[in-house]
Amino acid sequence: MNSLHALRHSAEHVMHQAVKELFPAIQLAMGPATDDGFYNDFDSSPQGVEPVEVTEKDFPRLEKRMRELINLNLPITRHEISESEAKKLFKGNPYKLEWVSDIVKKGEPITVYWTGEPGARNAMVDLCRGPHVASTGEIKAFKLLSVAGAYWHGDEKNKMLTRIYGTAFPSKKELEDFLQRREEAKRRDHRKLGQELELFLISDAVGPGLILWQPKGNIIKELIEDWAKATEKAWGYQRVTTPSITKAGLYYTSGHLPYYQKDMYPPMKLDDGAEYFLKPMNCPHHHQLYAARPRSYRDLPLRLAEYGTCYRYESSGELFGLMRVRGFAQNDSHIYCREDQAVQEFVSVMKLHEYYYQVLGIKDYHLELALRDPKDTHKYSGDDAMWEKAESLMRQAVEQVDIPMVETRGNAAFYGPKIDFIIHSSIGREFAISTNQIDLFMGDRFGLQYIDADGKEKTPVIIHRAPLGSHERFIGFLIEQFAGAFPLWLSPVQIAVLPVGESQVVYAKLVTEKLADKGLRVELWDQAESLPKRIRLAEKQKTPYMLIVGDKEVKADTVSVRVRGNQDQGVKSVPDFIEQAVHLNHSKSLTL
Amino acid sequence: MNSLHALRHSAEHVMHQAVKELFPAIQLAMGPATDDGFYNDFDSSPQGVEPVEVTEKDFPRLEKRMRELINLNLPITRHEISESEAKKLFKGNPYKLEWVSDIVKKGEPITVYWTGEPGARNAMVDLCRGPHVASTGEIKAFKLLSVAGAYWHGDEKNKMLTRIYGTAFPSKKELEDFLQRREEAKRRDHRKLGQELELFLISDAVGPGLILWQPKGNIIKELIEDWAKATEKAWGYQRVTTPSITKAGLYYTSGHLPYYQKDMYPPMKLDDGAEYFLKPMNCPHHHQLYAARPRSYRDLPLRLAEYGTCYRYESSGELFGLMRVRGFAQNDSHIYCREDQAVQEFVSVMKLHEYYYQVLGIKDYHLELALRDPKDTHKYSGDDAMWEKAESLMRQAVEQVDIPMVETRGNAAFYGPKIDFIIHSSIGREFAISTNQIDLFMGDRFGLQYIDADGKEKTPVIIHRAPLGSHERFIGFLIEQFAGAFPLWLSPVQIAVLPVGESQVVYAKLVTEKLADKGLRVELWDQAESLPKRIRLAEKQKTPYMLIVGDKEVKADTVSVRVRGNQDQGVKSVPDFIEQAVHLNHSKSLTL
Repeated sequence: MNSLHALRHSAEHVMHQAVKELFPAIQLAMGPATDDGFYNDFDSSPQGVEPVEVTEKDFPRLEKRMRELINLNLPITRHEISESEAKKLFKGNPYKLEWVSDIVKKGEPITVYWTGEPGARNAMVDLCRGPHVASTGEIKAFKLLSVAGAYWHGDEKNKMLTRIYGTAFPSKKELEDFLQRREEAKRRDHRKLGQELELFLISDAVGPGLILWQPKGNIIKELIEDWAKATEKAWGYQRVTTPSITKAGLYYTSGHLPYYQKDMYPPMKLDDGAEYFLKPMNCPHHHQLYAARPRSYRDLPLRLAEYGTCYRYESSGELFGLMRVRGFAQNDSHIYCREDQAVQEFVSVMKLHEYYYQVLGIKDYHLELALRDPKDTHKYSGDDAMWEKAESLMRQAVEQVDIPMVETRGNAAFYGPKIDFIIHSSIGREFAISTNQIDLFMGDRFGLQYIDADGKEKTPVIIHRAPLGSHERFIGFLIEQFAGAFPLWLSPVQIAVLPVGESQVVYAKLVTEKLADKGLRVELWDQAESLPKRIRLAEKQKTPYMLIVGDKEVKADTVSVRVRGNQDQGVKSVPDFIEQAVHLNHSKSLTL
Repeated sequence: MNSLHALRHSAEHVMHQAVKELFPAIQLAMGPATDDGFYNDFDSSPQGVEPVEVTEKDFPRLEKRMRELINLNLPITRHEISESEAKKLFKGNPYKLEWVSDIVKKGEPITVYWTGEPGARNAMVDLCRGPHVASTGEIKAFKLLSVAGAYWHGDEKNKMLTRIYGTAFPSKKELEDFLQRREEAKRRDHRKLGQELELFLISDAVGPGLILWQPKGNIIKELIEDWAKATEKAWGYQRVTTPSITKAGLYYTSGHLPYYQKDMYPPMKLDDGAEYFLKPMNCPHHHQLYAARPRSYRDLPLRLAEYGTCYRYESSGELFGLMRVRGFAQNDSHIYCREDQAVQEFVSVMKLHEYYYQVLGIKDYHLELALRDPKDTHKYSGDDAMWEKAESLMRQAVEQVDIPMVETRGNAAFYGPKIDFIIHSSIGREFAISTNQIDLFMGDRFGLQYIDADGKEKTPVIIHRAPLGSHERFIGFLIEQFAGAFPLWLSPVQIAVLPVGESQVVYAKLVTEKLADKGLRVELWDQAESLPKRIRLAEKQKTPYMLIVGDKEVKADTVSVRVRGNQDQGVKSVPDFIEQAVHLNHSKSLTL
């Protein structure tokens, strides 16, 4: 809890006061400070009163009243009170009374914060643990941002409350910077760009969180997949394909059932009693392929890779465009190796991450080592020795690469510690893209074996990895990273050929065919629309190159090259342009 | 019912008699002639008697007794009898009595066939519609083939009976030809080869009918998929990807629910009441993509293609290796076009089939036009005009290609006629590989629209097609077609480099790297095993080329080229061999 949080929490109390003054009928439920600002949930239709509707149209008068309360520089003071005082103070507000009971149950002190003179008519009190700034005058800059619905306790079974989001900063400058970043984030929003660029679709009829890739998005998806396949082939991986469903038994073996069941789609129950599940991960399927034949120490490492299609039943409130979905295709692999190979394999996995990210110009990322919480051992399987060895092997590997790492406790998988790659996006967000593990647990659970050089049966170490995460989240990230203006090699349409008028269409067609012959994704736009209109459209579609063809170009057998973002590369011969484009395409260049 | 069927049916009665004589405790249930021979189901553990076990070990004495009965040239005669006579004749045999009741219910005459003098002690009678040959002596050649279990009426809920398969022919020569073809079919069996060549796996733990592609099988699958993608891109298709599940509503719109539900996996029922199904076909998902934006007549034809992953709940008795599965990836596409484009598009679809099949050397196939049964109209949607138009458009298209066609009635889809491509395999089997339709029904059901040149909203025609069927069935067919000896371009491992001994390993490694650099799939086999053993292994794996490297080859910078099947291509320089292999690979040559 830093001072910015205290400032924002106080701003939230000021908003709270303003809302209550302007809409006396509402009942305040709760409101915290967040990493981005603050929000406040309230019931706008409590039982027995006329419901009110609070919308963004009310922001000006809410903000006006908040400014007045801030200008009054009201003191914000903390008071510890008794249960009966609390019950009296919040009488008639079921949300606050529920909090009071919870606090009493936990045996914690009940604290309230007053804004203004305690008990004064125009003062405001809220049940709150604090901390807060000393007076409202410290809130130098604030802004209300949006209104949304939110369930009480985030549970769909509870009442839908109204939530107002806002933010506050110690200075106007910081607020302006934030709002600018927010605008930039909106401009880069993958959901908005996904629709404008016709990349993907989420259809109510198919279901929330399920992505349908439109032709242009599918081009990006296939380019990434082809790249991953070629790269991983060169790095010694073999590809497999496994079904999206399985009988339940596989997850009892892995231990995912029943513990993980809430994150899975419900089972399909066959007449003969068998239960089938959509697979939430590929591991147990790959283990079947490992076990398909006897393995010798000479066969290891065996690296099985699949862009595996998995389904997880994320709650509908968690779903978010491509970033949090219910169906996804994961850049997955399981490496089965001997223990003496594990560190080297894990180093290689991290170097593969570095290679992928370097090609895509992703420079800002760190590792997060998630360890178990030693106080919460019932959440985890396996003995201490196993956990310590897995952790030690992963640490040995991390020491061999130059990637910063932070540690957390309590976020490990139930069967071992893990290392996440966290990418920092261009708009300040962090994405957990890839989870990696040295797994000393599952090999044993699935009875996997190899015959070692000494003739003895041993259990392989299993490394889990997914450097490119899922197509869905990774492409979501890329859309925002590039603001939809993909590098040439990832652009669904790379080049638009634009004849100035009817008389250059034949030549333009010829140019288009020459480019297509070289494997470039090129479109001839000879529609009736005016040239400026076609250029605007190509710009909107973030088409990397526009080749404009007028009489001069036809005569000289050239094209006039315009790069998206209004850069002019001048007139070039067709072979020169082809050489340039093919080179940039082939080298996966980030610049045009 | 031809004379061969009568002959086989009589052979079945002779087997029946022999089984009953040697195992008096059994109860005969039923036994027909088939396209391949005949079989006979009997209960080897009727209530109240000691169960017997009949196995292939009993074939010699059964065949001996059958030969005796044939040599006796017993007359086979037909007799119509009354219900009470039948009940007396088959007293104590619940299977036969059930048949009798069924016949009576249908009001049909009850007929029996006697082998030998009716009523004689060693004569045999069976409830049977016939026809039969006049006497056992006409059965010139027969053989018992195998024993299996089979449920009464094919229903898993009924008792498991014993089934003996056999066959019979009018001449020894024909029987021998049949047995040879049968051996050849066994040799080419995709299930056996799939295991030997490590192509795919069916895992009990994952579930029956669900294919796990091992690395080598996955190479074939990806080669076919890459080929299809490149080909279809050139033919004007755009690729999409859709999830494997959907909310139930989509299938109510299409009309598949509830009628098709028995062929689908049961639903996943969410807490909020929504039901999700695994998709048994891709059509409704593609329709969502069509509907994602307004379409103009200028946008058509729009060809959306996907190797879509579908799941169908085939009954466990129907499952058969890769040929009949529960999960499959279909070479699917939906073409949305104007009515005036439909014939041309359908012609193009058929030409695409021809192109694919020609590359793979598939010459023997025909079309099957499946029309509705006009007497059974409740099974079908849409009016007569629609059915007639769809049929007429497809016929117009078929006239433009040179592929033989047969017609069937009653096998149409519920929403329109269809044309299947039936491939005849090298072992005389027929495979329905691809279903094609001009669909005038679903566009309307899904409210699909485009704005025509006249400014009016119209419904597009939808063409369904899948020239390469599903990966599963098509690769199953290819395995049998090529007996596992795939053409170079489809071979998982194309070349094995075999140094004669330790001293050629360095050179062999160099050769291997040179070949790999050219994109050839090559393995260096320098294991401790002897050269003949490695050659045998490469032959067993159907590796197209073995490059043998001895001292002579090292000195001359050459390789000794051995083609699978013990053909010697002599000594070649490495560049010469590379040129040959790259050319054959690139041109998808069927010969080496």
